[in-house]
Amino acid sequence: MPTTLKDFESVWPRISADLQEHCKQYKLPQQSLDWFTKSLDYNTVGGKCNRGMSVVDTTSLLQNKTLDPKSEEYFRPALLGWMIELLQAFFLVSDDIMDASKTRRGNPCWYLAPKVGMIAINDAFMLEASIYILLKKHFRQEKSYIDMVELFHEVTFKTECGQLCDLLTAPEDDVNLDNFNLDKFTFIVIYKTAYYSFYLPVALALHYIGAATPKNLQTAEDILIPMGEYFQAQDDYLDAFADPEVLGKLGTDIMDNKCSWLINQALKQVTPEQRKLLEDNYGQKDSAKEAKVKKLYHDLKLREFYEQWEEERVADLRHKIDKVDESEGLKKEVFEVFLQKIYKRTK
Amino acid sequence: MPTTLKDFESVWPRISADLQEHCKQYKLPQQSLDWFTKSLDYNTVGGKCNRGMSVVDTTSLLQNKTLDPKSEEYFRPALLGWMIELLQAFFLVSDDIMDASKTRRGNPCWYLAPKVGMIAINDAFMLEASIYILLKKHFRQEKSYIDMVELFHEVTFKTECGQLCDLLTAPEDDVNLDNFNLDKFTFIVIYKTAYYSFYLPVALALHYIGAATPKNLQTAEDILIPMGEYFQAQDDYLDAFADPEVLGKLGTDIMDNKCSWLINQALKQVTPEQRKLLEDNYGQKDSAKEAKVKKLYHDLKLREFYEQWEEERVADLRHKIDKVDESEGLKKEVFEVFLQKIYKRTK
Repeated sequence: MPTTLKDFESVWPRISADLQEHCKQYKLPQQSLDWFTKSLDYNTVGGKCNRGMSVVDTTSLLQNKTLDPKSEEYFRPALLGWMIELLQAFFLVSDDIMDASKTRRGNPCWYLAPKVGMIAINDAFMLEASIYILLKKHFRQEKSYIDMVELFHEVTFKTECGQLCDLLTAPEDDVNLDNFNLDKFTFIVIYKTAYYSFYLPVALALHYIGAATPKNLQTAEDILIPMGEYFQAQDDYLDAFADPEVLGKLGTDIMDNKCSWLINQALKQVTPEQRKLLEDNYGQKDSAKEAKVKKLYHDLKLREFYEQWEEERVADLRHKIDKVDESEGLKKEVFEVFLQKIYKRTK
Repeated sequence: MPTTLKDFESVWPRISADLQEHCKQYKLPQQSLDWFTKSLDYNTVGGKCNRGMSVVDTTSLLQNKTLDPKSEEYFRPALLGWMIELLQAFFLVSDDIMDASKTRRGNPCWYLAPKVGMIAINDAFMLEASIYILLKKHFRQEKSYIDMVELFHEVTFKTECGQLCDLLTAPEDDVNLDNFNLDKFTFIVIYKTAYYSFYLPVALALHYIGAATPKNLQTAEDILIPMGEYFQAQDDYLDAFADPEVLGKLGTDIMDNKCSWLINQALKQVTPEQRKLLEDNYGQKDSAKEAKVKKLYHDLKLREFYEQWEEERVADLRHKIDKVDESEGLKKEVFEVFLQKIYKRTK
């Protein structure tokens, strides 16, 4: 049985207490300690925790046992999962500033919370640094310690490279469709999202159970990175085509000048006239213009194109999963579970 | 002979090339690669590089040999020195945003350079991440590798704690002298500046030459942290009392509501009337008010107080240096050289 958000969240207070304890060693003044504690809770807790929980679920599958949420054997993979949530918190706090976003998880973005402002930048740094404090405290004795440290470094830098490319490719204030192409789209998706969201949880679980052989890591990457690409294309598809009632939000990719899967597919197919329409209407905060772009997406039959593309991608992933060599402790089921959560999702 | 800035800077192109090479593995699109390269040069090169060069000088002293700037035995400690400069670049790029600064090293702050803006936050992250890319590439085989990684993690987090405390203690827009006290001043100085500026270069050199015994590291910390405190108090003293012609800049600590050594010493000594004067005049962008605060500093004889305090601190440091046990490869001379650079400096 997969873990629940409730059980996963139940270990958080212990993690927060560890980090506070670490700061107390330094005699960090109380006002600063309270601030850090608040930033930790505000920014790390309250999401869906899919990435974090999948470390627990992957560990449980690979070890072929149910993990009692009150036990150390639950706590340790959950702790690794919370490190991914800390990494995500570091990215989200700073992305929200860079994108001038207003809300996050239904609350004001941290930098817009009372008295925070640009202090949020330093708070983001401290969220990232927390990962390594926790790794050192809890995993220093493990053979895989330095590998896990390096894994976090590498995935962090990859995500930053993806974010840089995204920021340079789709500045909100300078709409230029010449900037977009499918190679850049693919780079952004893989680097900005797929490594930390798909590869990292499984790679951590492999390190944790002592099965992070080069072959297993390579297999995980070869399946999970394309799966992350598929996930993001689907996300972009849902942004334009899903029922907002079901999706739970209004898609804004067209108005936000996003380098999305749809606009890139459209650009491959358009006539010069249609391209002109996109140039005149994409990336502007004007719902009439947005509607024209959506109309073109319909005319280009992007919904049908996506649906066919999705079937191909999923067939390819199933084929890869089917070929997974389980002799070094990896299991096909790990990937099947990931794919099940994604395939045909509507939100 | 200490190394020169010219020799130290001569190894930078190789370091920049390493980092670009790393990104090319990822097939980072050219526009992003060019951007990263520019950020590296703009933010890392152009300072005095005292911290970075002191890794080379400390190594040379401890190994008791001159390092040929064209040799690998120069390159490796210089590379560690450049990692401190990268760490500093990460802090400066982000501090400038948090403090809304305008210029840095005579140029516009990076976030104010054309087209940069808040992308600077992600650029700061990439500067930090560069440290670990370089450590892995060049030091992975060394016994001290994981210790150096942990040293950077720890010093980074300590600096972030110092920065948080500084930001919360002295917000530019909310002047409240009740916030200040010498304990907080000391915390800020030690954590925000002393660890990365004084302790880190020597600790890295000790790791590099294989002499980072617990005792040597403790000795280095016990001398260099108080030396960093002294350095910052001196910096604050010079801000108010040095000749701006000699200092090379106009002091702005009073107007900027800085939690400086001087204001904290003043607060310890003032009468209720004098405290009222400080409350009415400190931390405001008004040179008449600044002059009133300076007049009070003179009335309180803070110049003379500082000069006496300095002699005591230096005598204490000399005493500590004199007692250094050189049996595990550390040398008094390392600390003497640091102290010589600081004592009685005028800029």
